[in-house]
Amino acid sequence: MNGKQIIPFLTTKSLHPENQESPINFLNEWQTPIKYFYRRNHFTYPFLTQHHFWIQISGQVHQPRFFHYNEILSMPSKSLIVPLECAGNKRVNFIPKVYGEQWEEGAISQGKWTGVSLKDILENVGLSQNAQEIVFEGADFGKKPGMHENIPFERSLPLEKALHPDTIIAYKYNDKPLSFKHGYPFRLIVPNWYAMASVKWLSKIKVIDDAYKGPFQTDDYVYYPHEDSDRDKFPVTILNVNSIIQQPIHLSILNIGIHEIKGIAWTGNGSITELQLSFDKGETWKYATLNSLLNQDYAWSSWSYIWKVEKKGEYAIYSRAKDSSGRIQPQTPFWNRKGYGYNAVSKITVKVE
Amino acid sequence: MNGKQIIPFLTTKSLHPENQESPINFLNEWQTPIKYFYRRNHFTYPFLTQHHFWIQISGQVHQPRFFHYNEILSMPSKSLIVPLECAGNKRVNFIPKVYGEQWEEGAISQGKWTGVSLKDILENVGLSQNAQEIVFEGADFGKKPGMHENIPFERSLPLEKALHPDTIIAYKYNDKPLSFKHGYPFRLIVPNWYAMASVKWLSKIKVIDDAYKGPFQTDDYVYYPHEDSDRDKFPVTILNVNSIIQQPIHLSILNIGIHEIKGIAWTGNGSITELQLSFDKGETWKYATLNSLLNQDYAWSSWSYIWKVEKKGEYAIYSRAKDSSGRIQPQTPFWNRKGYGYNAVSKITVKVE
Repeated sequence: MNGKQIIPFLTTKSLHPENQESPINFLNEWQTPIKYFYRRNHFTYPFLTQHHFWIQISGQVHQPRFFHYNEILSMPSKSLIVPLECAGNKRVNFIPKVYGEQWEEGAISQGKWTGVSLKDILENVGLSQNAQEIVFEGADFGKKPGMHENIPFERSLPLEKALHPDTIIAYKYNDKPLSFKHGYPFRLIVPNWYAMASVKWLSKIKVIDDAYKGPFQTDDYVYYPHEDSDRDKFPVTILNVNSIIQQPIHLSILNIGIHEIKGIAWTGNGSITELQLSFDKGETWKYATLNSLLNQDYAWSSWSYIWKVEKKGEYAIYSRAKDSSGRIQPQTPFWNRKGYGYNAVSKITVKVE
Repeated sequence: MNGKQIIPFLTTKSLHPENQESPINFLNEWQTPIKYFYRRNHFTYPFLTQHHFWIQISGQVHQPRFFHYNEILSMPSKSLIVPLECAGNKRVNFIPKVYGEQWEEGAISQGKWTGVSLKDILENVGLSQNAQEIVFEGADFGKKPGMHENIPFERSLPLEKALHPDTIIAYKYNDKPLSFKHGYPFRLIVPNWYAMASVKWLSKIKVIDDAYKGPFQTDDYVYYPHEDSDRDKFPVTILNVNSIIQQPIHLSILNIGIHEIKGIAWTGNGSITELQLSFDKGETWKYATLNSLLNQDYAWSSWSYIWKVEKKGEYAIYSRAKDSSGRIQPQTPFWNRKGYGYNAVSKITVKVE
């Protein structure tokens, strides 16, 4: 009986533009079903035309040209399991509060992206000697608060990252053509970087000979460590080492007995090597069981821990992940004015009755 | 194109049992569409049988008997616009934090309920002289945390409230048969009371000659003002005077210019007479425009205020409702251990760029 089906939903943060987060606490899959993939937009959805089935490549290249959808689909492809995480994920946890979408833990989703290496495309057109950065323009555009002109969503990558063979122009997600809301027909996928780099509705690629200065690169998606000054700012790039406790739910009431504590952990620098749990507010740490996908360098790890609780009371549970580059989730959040990259130790409390 | 449709969703708090809140910030209707009606369950959904098309009435009555669905549908009916609000709505705002579902503002929904007056049913069977309370049993049952036996969801009403002609046994919501998740075939609707009184899947009505003491009446749904003692406890009954700011969204970033501030306000004691807004943290208050439904004693009021903002900066906006019984939302929340009835002044901050 359909009326009895119990399923989670995206959580609505705003509708114009659409920003909805994934019900991450209630998902178990390695590949997030598309209906549960978080939606993060800066602008209203673009109006697609036949133009958007062509990607234009121009600037510091030997042979500026257009690539048609069919041509791209005919090229050698690769498939990668890659999580995308909004740089503002977990923003709601910052104290003092910061403005912007109040993402909880669900501005992250993961699935199988299929496409062609950007490298192959760039080699086809031939980079000039003075090529410095590659700029990616999406078909979506609008006004930023406080600005008067329409601008497209646009970001750049340094040459090294652009030429990494796993930076792909994706046209499939979980073995189906990209859905419209997630960039159809083309989305740049930049593994290990926060998702602002993975430009949706990719329309234009421009090779430039200097440093790109667009507002989504030098105004937004910049860490500003101080409230009243831009001093010490630096750009948002790779994912911090991070984890969430999916179950149990923060502030829930449990029975005495055995409970599975479970979650996921991820990093943009290597792989997850440890997931530690503390039941004494960080004094001592225990190891959770980690599960990782074979031969997938970017996918999150899932973890679980069997917890036997015999006494009524209130329990704090902390989780922190460690990665192969030696990074570990910090005790104290790195506060920054626009609220990016939150990755302090994850904390829940539960009551056992 | 279906893939472009932008709609809000319920927000998932737990799946077993199902607890999901309404995307109240994004709804404008007087009658919440059923798919956006919040879902609050103590137990897994009941398995319905033909039994549930009969309501049994027993106890202190002259003629104990069963009423069949068809008989109830053949009786004189009435339709009322009634909001239902979970007593735990806004629980997330309590400090110190309290355990239980962390409802934000969406554990409230409203629509048109159609059914027969409970009074007519009770008069049909004839109350005995010593009748004191009426007990309502739902078909849903399970274990409460820390308890070992299955118990049904069950609540009582004092005679006076049970005999109010607007306390109805509803079988339609928004002109359609109740949906399964909201109590099909029968749901008690108790206007003005928090929604724990509006028992779903109503199966049995028992008239008793003393005070009902079940756990959903004397353990849960009780205000406990102290952390470590049950002193001064009193039962949860009527809705507090309350309001929410639906738009703009807390911590959002707006342009300079004209914005509509809008929301709803409600009470369980009379009607809303004022909605006040403060832009100076409660020093001074302005009046919003109130809209109420004609001849609907219980429905929420909607309100709006045109706000012209000419200077960049951060703005705090407070809202508080006042009702015809003279109650007004308090500055300070009434903290209680189980987190019921939160109705302190609603506060948001926005940044204008």
